[in-house]
Amino acid sequence: MKNQDKKPSQGVITRDPFPASRKIYVQGELHDIQVAMREITVSDTIQKINGKTIKEEKNPPVTVYDTSGAYTDPNVEIDVRKGLPRLRENWILARNDVEELPAISSEYGQERANNSKLDHLRFEHIRKPLRAKSGQNVSQLHYARKGIITPEMEYIAIRENQRIQLQNEELAKQHLGQSFGANTPIREITPEFVRQEVALGRAVIPSNINHPESEPMIIGRNFLVKINANIGNSATTSSIEEEVEKAVWACRWGADTVMDLSTGKNIHETREWIIRNSPVPIGTVPIYQALEKVNGKAEELTWEMFRDTLIEQAEQGVDYFTIHAGILLRYVPLTAKRVTGIVSRGGSIMAKWCLAHHKESFLYTHFEEICEIMKAYDVAFSLGDGLRPGCLADANDKAQFAELETLGELTKVAWEHDVQTIIEGPGHVPMHMIKENMDKQLRECGEAPFYTLGPLTTDIAPGYDHITSGIGAAMIGWYGTAMLCYVTPKEHLGLPNKKDVKDGVITYKIAAHAADLAKGHPGAQYRDNALSKARFEFRWQDQFNLSLDPETAKEFHDETLPADGAKIAHFCSMCGPHFCSMKITQDVRDYADSLGVKEKEALEKGMQQKSEQFIEAGAEIYS
Amino acid sequence: MKNQDKKPSQGVITRDPFPASRKIYVQGELHDIQVAMREITVSDTIQKINGKTIKEEKNPPVTVYDTSGAYTDPNVEIDVRKGLPRLRENWILARNDVEELPAISSEYGQERANNSKLDHLRFEHIRKPLRAKSGQNVSQLHYARKGIITPEMEYIAIRENQRIQLQNEELAKQHLGQSFGANTPIREITPEFVRQEVALGRAVIPSNINHPESEPMIIGRNFLVKINANIGNSATTSSIEEEVEKAVWACRWGADTVMDLSTGKNIHETREWIIRNSPVPIGTVPIYQALEKVNGKAEELTWEMFRDTLIEQAEQGVDYFTIHAGILLRYVPLTAKRVTGIVSRGGSIMAKWCLAHHKESFLYTHFEEICEIMKAYDVAFSLGDGLRPGCLADANDKAQFAELETLGELTKVAWEHDVQTIIEGPGHVPMHMIKENMDKQLRECGEAPFYTLGPLTTDIAPGYDHITSGIGAAMIGWYGTAMLCYVTPKEHLGLPNKKDVKDGVITYKIAAHAADLAKGHPGAQYRDNALSKARFEFRWQDQFNLSLDPETAKEFHDETLPADGAKIAHFCSMCGPHFCSMKITQDVRDYADSLGVKEKEALEKGMQQKSEQFIEAGAEIYS
Repeated sequence: MKNQDKKPSQGVITRDPFPASRKIYVQGELHDIQVAMREITVSDTIQKINGKTIKEEKNPPVTVYDTSGAYTDPNVEIDVRKGLPRLRENWILARNDVEELPAISSEYGQERANNSKLDHLRFEHIRKPLRAKSGQNVSQLHYARKGIITPEMEYIAIRENQRIQLQNEELAKQHLGQSFGANTPIREITPEFVRQEVALGRAVIPSNINHPESEPMIIGRNFLVKINANIGNSATTSSIEEEVEKAVWACRWGADTVMDLSTGKNIHETREWIIRNSPVPIGTVPIYQALEKVNGKAEELTWEMFRDTLIEQAEQGVDYFTIHAGILLRYVPLTAKRVTGIVSRGGSIMAKWCLAHHKESFLYTHFEEICEIMKAYDVAFSLGDGLRPGCLADANDKAQFAELETLGELTKVAWEHDVQTIIEGPGHVPMHMIKENMDKQLRECGEAPFYTLGPLTTDIAPGYDHITSGIGAAMIGWYGTAMLCYVTPKEHLGLPNKKDVKDGVITYKIAAHAADLAKGHPGAQYRDNALSKARFEFRWQDQFNLSLDPETAKEFHDETLPADGAKIAHFCSMCGPHFCSMKITQDVRDYADSLGVKEKEALEKGMQQKSEQFIEAGAEIYS
Repeated sequence: MKNQDKKPSQGVITRDPFPASRKIYVQGELHDIQVAMREITVSDTIQKINGKTIKEEKNPPVTVYDTSGAYTDPNVEIDVRKGLPRLRENWILARNDVEELPAISSEYGQERANNSKLDHLRFEHIRKPLRAKSGQNVSQLHYARKGIITPEMEYIAIRENQRIQLQNEELAKQHLGQSFGANTPIREITPEFVRQEVALGRAVIPSNINHPESEPMIIGRNFLVKINANIGNSATTSSIEEEVEKAVWACRWGADTVMDLSTGKNIHETREWIIRNSPVPIGTVPIYQALEKVNGKAEELTWEMFRDTLIEQAEQGVDYFTIHAGILLRYVPLTAKRVTGIVSRGGSIMAKWCLAHHKESFLYTHFEEICEIMKAYDVAFSLGDGLRPGCLADANDKAQFAELETLGELTKVAWEHDVQTIIEGPGHVPMHMIKENMDKQLRECGEAPFYTLGPLTTDIAPGYDHITSGIGAAMIGWYGTAMLCYVTPKEHLGLPNKKDVKDGVITYKIAAHAADLAKGHPGAQYRDNALSKARFEFRWQDQFNLSLDPETAKEFHDETLPADGAKIAHFCSMCGPHFCSMKITQDVRDYADSLGVKEKEALEKGMQQKSEQFIEAGAEIYS
């Protein structure tokens, strides 16, 4: 707790570029934009027979989607006390539909700003907030429906296509020509396609006008599956500095958005630091902070103070709000016979409020007023699943599905206001019940993007719930979930530390990528193929560099074979020199070559001839 | 390497019983057998309002399937130098169809036995091997087809039903009465059902007559999904002692079978130590040892020396052999255009042999002679998938499926000899192609059990391949795979150490259990429900004890909340005292109680009344 009342220091942020990687920037065509990507250099293929090089092949670099932001570009100067460069600022101002406010409009925000006791931990360069001009709607959905392709949309189109932005066009074609039985038709991701998907409500671009530091990204099932990492302090642990580093750390390993779920000290100031330094959209659950303001007494929450909290956070730049507006009073009794009752924190707070007041919550009754706030800053709804199941026994029950139906109704209301909307989902669901949940969400919510926590496919492995849930996450991602909220090994047990955050993020990158592959997303398999080719050719360093976590891959390899030479030698630590099947396969080819077949292409023919000779010779099986 | 030439010492084996657990033995009815299980004691539910106890409920102990053997029973004296008690010895002898051989019949086995230089590392209590009397077939499949219910079969029936062997019959009924949309019909597992499944070839009981130490278990898709752990030394690493402890360690965490894939020094002696101390069936890939005998030169392998290796290992007690008999010469060219060629070690060896000799392998041409050996000891076939894909790009290709079709033909040959048979499967397969593979296996191989390695659902995460493959394993288990071969975090990178073995086993227990749940195996969800109930009631210690890995769960919890009191307090480390949703849900119930509703059952009614009052009052939504 000793650091909780201190500003973050510069040195705490992890900035090392990934090995063999450089940041590249692809220029837009419709707009003057530069889309950041990571390019991984790969070494050449060299085939030798008896020490003589018989073939050399250039392997093109592999370009991958990159959420790590400017931190991994050594050419960008970053000072955590000043925040990231404001990438989107000019795009926002050029639309001429926002105005700079004279001051923060939220009462609580003003109170914090004027409290000199907080000076020592306040972010120093807070700008005046922007808000839509009177009568204007600044949401990406609003632009999309007006037929406007924003710079954000073009950025996304280029970014989502990154895996096929290949120097080597032939390889790209080779991949795209491949039959890859997808259940979603393969489309080229054009700026116009992005606009259409947003206009239909099938995808959202979380992009608060007060978070210009974020790099545009999209959440929708016809795009790459995204993942979210939760961070945030609590009453008993962690500092501002730790949370800022956790956010940057989560992005480094692949988090597409970060939710700040702080419930401890200085929530307002912590959030400011996180947003100013985050290259990805930030989500929050505003009811958590509101509850802190009434000292944890749910029944004392009011619409007025909740509204003030929404404005406070919208003016800081939060990109999406989890709002548990789907819990109706009559749904609460449906949870009474559950094994684990209500496990969502937001859900529990609202259920308690409903019972205490015996009426529908202010989230539900003031929903259209919330929409007015959302569209003035372009904050997206993440309609919370307050009645999600907390164990397998409660999965897909009446309470859960009743709330989902209400979320569907609210989605339509939000869309009438051109407010971007995603829907949150569970939780704990056994494998055979996952598809039913996905299908119902698509049906009830008009195909608004689904955003699920896992789901966990068994309850019996606390300490390993990144894995129990990674299984469910991969499956529901394949079935159509657009964003997967990570689960760390500490789920149900404690707050995640940096190692847990990384384990959670990597596990969820695996789940999301497995889903992209199964959906046949354009170019998703390119990285797999490049790594597999490196594996076959014993290019160890390339395998590490192309992997999701080069450090761990390299470290695990070194543990058994520490010598550096091992990384280029044809020697596999699994099996010893004679046994390695990769080596033997190479021998098979060399053997064929020594019989006069010189090229890889000719090998098949040579084998075929030998096979025919074999058949002509009698094809004896039982001799 | 310093320990490679030493006998294992007693202290090296992990024997601590699991927390709150005791070994129980259930008596058979048809046979005089005692079936070992693990019973976990659970504390009572105590509900308090304002410090006053208002409800006390007994929670029945939870009985779980237990692969840890006698090691976790403190009442059994175990000396690793003598080996485990010979549980099945009398059952085998009572059938009166085996004879004790005067000596080891394999030449190589005799050579090792007579080599006094090996005395210092040889297991001291080697018994004379048993073999079927002339003309007899001692396979469980043979007995099953004759209508005999063996003690092994009854043992399995009791063992597989363990989760419903509940003291509290009501809870059992409550669970079984639950609708749990299964794709496999729920059947009570009777001894006769076990016999039928074995007779049909849909399940196997690996049970070499020379491995009487093993506790009977079954592999078949109408039973609990099983997992296998691979261990074994290599040319460069590990000792006999380490491998014996790894085997016991793997069983401790849930391995249902262990494969000894040693390729290093003293393979014969290492295997003897492992088998004598293993409570689970042991599998091997005999071609690995055969290759060592010819110094790694595949082309020098002969049928005669392979045959001698099979007999050597069968007389030691290996329960199943991986035999790559499905690789035909004409299939080899089908792999020429693959991204990763042939990645199975056994596959590579046989492909090289086929090319070098230009004829079909001795595994294929002598297959019926191999059957004769198998049935003389009851060794089961695990027909190897030598052409399995080594990356996503090669999944479900012609080479893989051609071999699978041949494995189907060989299964029918094995069944003509009443030899038990399972089929090995991949490997690397994206999610959307897994079901096609499973369905083809069932069709081609007459529903013989499928035994898959993962499959990995992406290639881009070396260092995390327990997770990339755990996803595929859970899915293919649900679709019908009977046994899942684990993958550790070291896959593709190095040899697993003890931590990796545990991580691999726990991940695969999760996958197998998730599959059991999705298939609706009787009683599978009981443990999940018990743990979830404990979670809801803040019985932390029960949560740890009921989990797959109590140590890790407890350790993770302690990391943030070290005080012991936290384990009984209603205080959750995730959210702080006010936020914890479990606590708030309890408050919701207490609140309802304070309004005059006293019992859980009455709560729903009370809520319902309130809901009606609300509707009568106007049900105002938008005020």
